[in-house]
Amino acid sequence: MRSIRLRVDWRATASLLGTVLKYLAVALLVPLTVAVIYWEDIWVFAVAIAITVTLGFTLERLDPEPDMGPAEALLLVTVSWLAVAMVGSVPYLLAGYGTASTLANPVNALFESMSGFTTTGATVMGEISTDQHSHALLLWRQLTQWLGGMGIIVLMIAILPELAVNGAQLMKTEAPGPELQKLTPRIAETARVLWLVYFGFTVLLAALLYGLHLAGFAPNMHLYNAVAHAFTTLPTGGFSPESDSIAAFSAVVQWVIIPFMVIAGTNFALFWHLLDGDIRTLLNDAEFRVYAGAIAVLSAILAALLYGGAAPAQELGGTTAGNTENALRQAAFQVGSLMNSTGFATSDFAQWGPTAQALLLFTMFVGGSAGSTGGGIKVIRWLVVMKAIRRELSVTARPEAVKPVRLGGYVVDEDVVRGIMVFTLLYLALFGAATVFFAVDSLRVGYELSVLEAMSASIATLGNIGPGFGMLGPFGSYLGFPPETKIVMVFLMWVGRLEIIPVLAVFTGAFWKR
Amino acid sequence: MRSIRLRVDWRATASLLGTVLKYLAVALLVPLTVAVIYWEDIWVFAVAIAITVTLGFTLERLDPEPDMGPAEALLLVTVSWLAVAMVGSVPYLLAGYGTASTLANPVNALFESMSGFTTTGATVMGEISTDQHSHALLLWRQLTQWLGGMGIIVLMIAILPELAVNGAQLMKTEAPGPELQKLTPRIAETARVLWLVYFGFTVLLAALLYGLHLAGFAPNMHLYNAVAHAFTTLPTGGFSPESDSIAAFSAVVQWVIIPFMVIAGTNFALFWHLLDGDIRTLLNDAEFRVYAGAIAVLSAILAALLYGGAAPAQELGGTTAGNTENALRQAAFQVGSLMNSTGFATSDFAQWGPTAQALLLFTMFVGGSAGSTGGGIKVIRWLVVMKAIRRELSVTARPEAVKPVRLGGYVVDEDVVRGIMVFTLLYLALFGAATVFFAVDSLRVGYELSVLEAMSASIATLGNIGPGFGMLGPFGSYLGFPPETKIVMVFLMWVGRLEIIPVLAVFTGAFWKR
Ligand SMILES: [K+]
Ligand SMILES: [K+]
Repeated sequence: MRSIRLRVDWRATASLLGTVLKYLAVALLVPLTVAVIYWEDIWVFAVAIAITVTLGFTLERLDPEPDMGPAEALLLVTVSWLAVAMVGSVPYLLAGYGTASTLANPVNALFESMSGFTTTGATVMGEISTDQHSHALLLWRQLTQWLGGMGIIVLMIAILPELAVNGAQLMKTEAPGPELQKLTPRIAETARVLWLVYFGFTVLLAALLYGLHLAGFAPNMHLYNAVAHAFTTLPTGGFSPESDSIAAFSAVVQWVIIPFMVIAGTNFALFWHLLDGDIRTLLNDAEFRVYAGAIAVLSAILAALLYGGAAPAQELGGTTAGNTENALRQAAFQVGSLMNSTGFATSDFAQWGPTAQALLLFTMFVGGSAGSTGGGIKVIRWLVVMKAIRRELSVTARPEAVKPVRLGGYVVDEDVVRGIMVFTLLYLALFGAATVFFAVDSLRVGYELSVLEAMSASIATLGNIGPGFGMLGPFGSYLGFPPETKIVMVFLMWVGRLEIIPVLAVFTGAFWKR
Repeated sequence: MRSIRLRVDWRATASLLGTVLKYLAVALLVPLTVAVIYWEDIWVFAVAIAITVTLGFTLERLDPEPDMGPAEALLLVTVSWLAVAMVGSVPYLLAGYGTASTLANPVNALFESMSGFTTTGATVMGEISTDQHSHALLLWRQLTQWLGGMGIIVLMIAILPELAVNGAQLMKTEAPGPELQKLTPRIAETARVLWLVYFGFTVLLAALLYGLHLAGFAPNMHLYNAVAHAFTTLPTGGFSPESDSIAAFSAVVQWVIIPFMVIAGTNFALFWHLLDGDIRTLLNDAEFRVYAGAIAVLSAILAALLYGGAAPAQELGGTTAGNTENALRQAAFQVGSLMNSTGFATSDFAQWGPTAQALLLFTMFVGGSAGSTGGGIKVIRWLVVMKAIRRELSVTARPEAVKPVRLGGYVVDEDVVRGIMVFTLLYLALFGAATVFFAVDSLRVGYELSVLEAMSASIATLGNIGPGFGMLGPFGSYLGFPPETKIVMVFLMWVGRLEIIPVLAVFTGAFWKR
């Protein structure tokens, strides 16, 4: 079968990208409807839909009956995130056109759009409020993250494992559904099941938040805000139409969002088992135990630090020193948010003490679980890396005792171990190289940037987290960076979201030749 | 054979450590002689010798006929660097006793001694000059690096490859000598051959430097300085009895030292082939080509930056802007010194522009060659890591085409590839963890430390480089750090020098049990 195809069928890929864009046009009906409701800039979305539909149909006509193999799937994944981010920036550009908005600049618009679709949540918007921007545009921004999260679920659980990408196979054993068959029907079925989970949690959170509002516990959590924040919690997105992020809401709202952030970073396939009444699969899952345990332990340490006065008494977030409830809430919220790469904030942690910030920086390197919408290196990879290190030490100590790496009772294939180590090395190398680039590029244009800020910018974009430290804190902005740096950040968000290796593989000669 | 031995024979290890200490006592005769010549503190070294000899004999008596297997060799390597550093700190302590010297503090003395024996070259001495310290003590400091270098050669080419430690096998193919036989005779033979190369280059450099002095080209390079600097060039040590390091000497001295630094970072086994009249083995060696090529390319880029004004006109080092000779010399010297972890300096590169510093920071992550005295990750590991990454991308692009990793025509065993990736990940993890620790610990005691300084302290100690950036620059000092940080640095120098995995392996349960 494969030997017949001499190279990648780019026409088929382009045609399928056309189909993706048609779905994007359908999604654009949501902000259009909002614009109608609020009597806002309807033309922005009407024009965006027209452009998107035209592009979609044009591409689809390149190959009326596209046939997708592994190579085409890889190319489609890589190209579609870039293309969707570009097309998705059109509403920002149109709304910003002729105004003083920072989004009138194409680099800024692309940055904001890529940040949305990759569920990063880093922003270059000036003031974020419905006074400055339309409800429709800000909801589009929220929706891009929710759509990006849908794409990630398919990518993580359906596509990458089939393509045997760098240890993504580990997630396959967890995924429900039939045995490996033809690629396309399996993707469709797995995706359907997991989208249901994703959709269900989104509706549940929106209903809970709006319920709190109706019950009087959350004055400003009206329907718009409830939906907007549900849209960006489940995909570990972190965008908010409120410039104060979740600090804008009451303590009870913050407590409600915490478990949903934890859920967003958990393997969604485990919840499917839960719906079948099977809670043991969740509780016995090696990755979930470490993920949940790490959140608990790090939250407890951070809460102790905050209780001891690690955070200044702030306008947003309030006093944590000596305040048990607030120390616990701020700690759990920030750890839950940064570990799995959500990026919401209830306090300006960029102002916290050095130990607390070091702990948060560490947290940012952990990442979510496999099969979740969370980004970063991910818990399961750290588990395999640590077990591989331990194995290597044992082998050095006792050369005659070579043992396989085991995870949750299963032997991890050596190819998978190797792929995970390569991924982790590449991740760290990209992180380091980008840090140096940001530092040097900023100094070049005279933009003051500390090494910590450069590091946090690098991990926050590559890990799809969003906020960093210093002026990139949760209430800060990426606006001031030079355009070259922003373009590198767009690249980092893109490759980071797609697990690096698939994107880079498309750039190899081996992918195109033969 | 092995199955008979139920656990590590610690008595045999202790006995062999006793022998090592007896050799150390012999080495202490050198500073004793210098003290006699200069009419200095003879008692310091007499007492140190007495202590060392007593310890050595006591330990030797634990097992009069020690039998060394792989486990004992591993333990001996690990323990001896620590024990030698401790015993080697006695002269510092005795000389500092009752004075205002910073070395009167045991932590400082241990730091300086470990920095010497690991060929790191980081210092906590206050003012470095023969006015403040005796010629004998400063020569002891130089000698510790030369002895450390001797130890490293045995470790790298003779011991680690036999123990199959994390890719050290790669170096074995290069080493001369007979087939694998019994462990002890082979170590002795390989060591003898390579010590000859080491000794030969040391004598050659000392003769050249003193020759320049006699010829009038190097006024202050008298015999003491010529020997002292030859002692720390070949082991990539970097200590100097002059507080201005190599900036204290004339341009011609600097030009002469550059090729010897390059040599110090090259696989010594290649020079053995050279003595046989075989230059092709050197020129065709994959690692040497990349190592020499990287020095050439990075020096050229840095020279261009310096020529363009990246360094301020300095008291030490002079003006490089518009000065071709000086720009080339400063660039080649600093790149040659930092890449293979020597740490000599001819200019305060901590004052250079951000791009130049970023380039030097990158250089510090490269490391020397396998089978050299250079530290760090090392060129050969980067080659294997990059080839493994490339292979992974190819496999992702075309799953049917799995190829082995090749280096210089040979297939690299998958175990070796895996071991090298584990090493690199551990190295980067230790680097990151130490950086965070240094930053937090310094802030705790109110010692101002930038993130760049913390990073450079971490890589400079773990990579056995010596100087870093900011106040840890080549003319700076590690004195101001809190004691906890210094102890962690002692640990980093120790594990970094011993290639991390052997030390950590000794701490595993698998090493001691069964
Ligand atoms: K995010
Ligand atoms: K050094």
